[in-house]
Amino acid sequence: MPSALRFEPVATVVGGRSEPVDDDWDGVEAIVRLDERFEPEALDGLAEFSHVEVVYVFDRVDPADVETGARHPRGNERWPRVGIFAQRAKDRPNRIGVSICRLLLVEGCDLHVAGLDAVDGTPVLDLKPVMAEFAPRGETRQPEWARELMAGYWISS
Amino acid sequence: MPSALRFEPVATVVGGRSEPVDDDWDGVEAIVRLDERFEPEALDGLAEFSHVEVVYVFDRVDPADVETGARHPRGNERWPRVGIFAQRAKDRPNRIGVSICRLLLVEGCDLHVAGLDAVDGTPVLDLKPVMAEFAPRGETRQPEWARELMAGYWISS
Repeated sequence: MPSALRFEPVATVVGGRSEPVDDDWDGVEAIVRLDERFEPEALDGLAEFSHVEVVYVFDRVDPADVETGARHPRGNERWPRVGIFAQRAKDRPNRIGVSICRLLLVEGCDLHVAGLDAVDGTPVLDLKPVMAEFAPRGETRQPEWARELMAGYWISS
Repeated sequence: MPSALRFEPVATVVGGRSEPVDDDWDGVEAIVRLDERFEPEALDGLAEFSHVEVVYVFDRVDPADVETGARHPRGNERWPRVGIFAQRAKDRPNRIGVSICRLLLVEGCDLHVAGLDAVDGTPVLDLKPVMAEFAPRGETRQPEWARELMAGYWISS
């Protein structure tokens, strides 16, 4: 195996929710603020995209709580016991989250976004423009439990 | 800013292409092999998903070559000069790639995949199931240069 890798956050989430909750993220607005080592030109042209993909770290998760095997998603025994890599839960190895949010405005080194499921203070590892070509190619399939779990995630039902 | 973060690869890409090229990735098959600290149960239930999202490191990129400002994508002056965070190029801060590929088969600690745009030996930081609910919410928009750049990326035209 390759050895450990070191990363420097490129940005931080400012504002939005201060505590992680399970659902209703789509109405949350926040700022993703680039680290001061970057100039605004690192964001040039990003405003032409409607959505941004944010790679971030669930840094509030205690490394001791990370699941490395299988468990019921959200501890719900009505759903099957599945491996941590078959879930998008935050207490996962490396604690990395990847999420697509709407880009409202680019202002200097600040991205104003809506629907980012990361709390205030979250370290951000990368920002990427969302291109239609990076959507899944071919027919998609997912189990019923995933659909049930996600039902209120963005907009509570 | 939060200080540097350390990550341990959870898996490695085995097979597929040995050199990075720009285009025609969809026909490439490879294995994503979980690190030996994991048991196969970490992948339980993943086979019910058609697609997997792979978070990986462009570790062949020399850190000295990382772009932190703006440039023409692929050096093509017909396309606008845009910030590195408005591109998905590999020579980016933290050198992280995020890509969705088709899941062909789960076999022990091996995922057989197709259309993963990462070369043999690439360290993988995370694996996530692709859920329709994590697609962009709302209408999407992207500039013309991105469409042109992506034209032959998955299947050469």
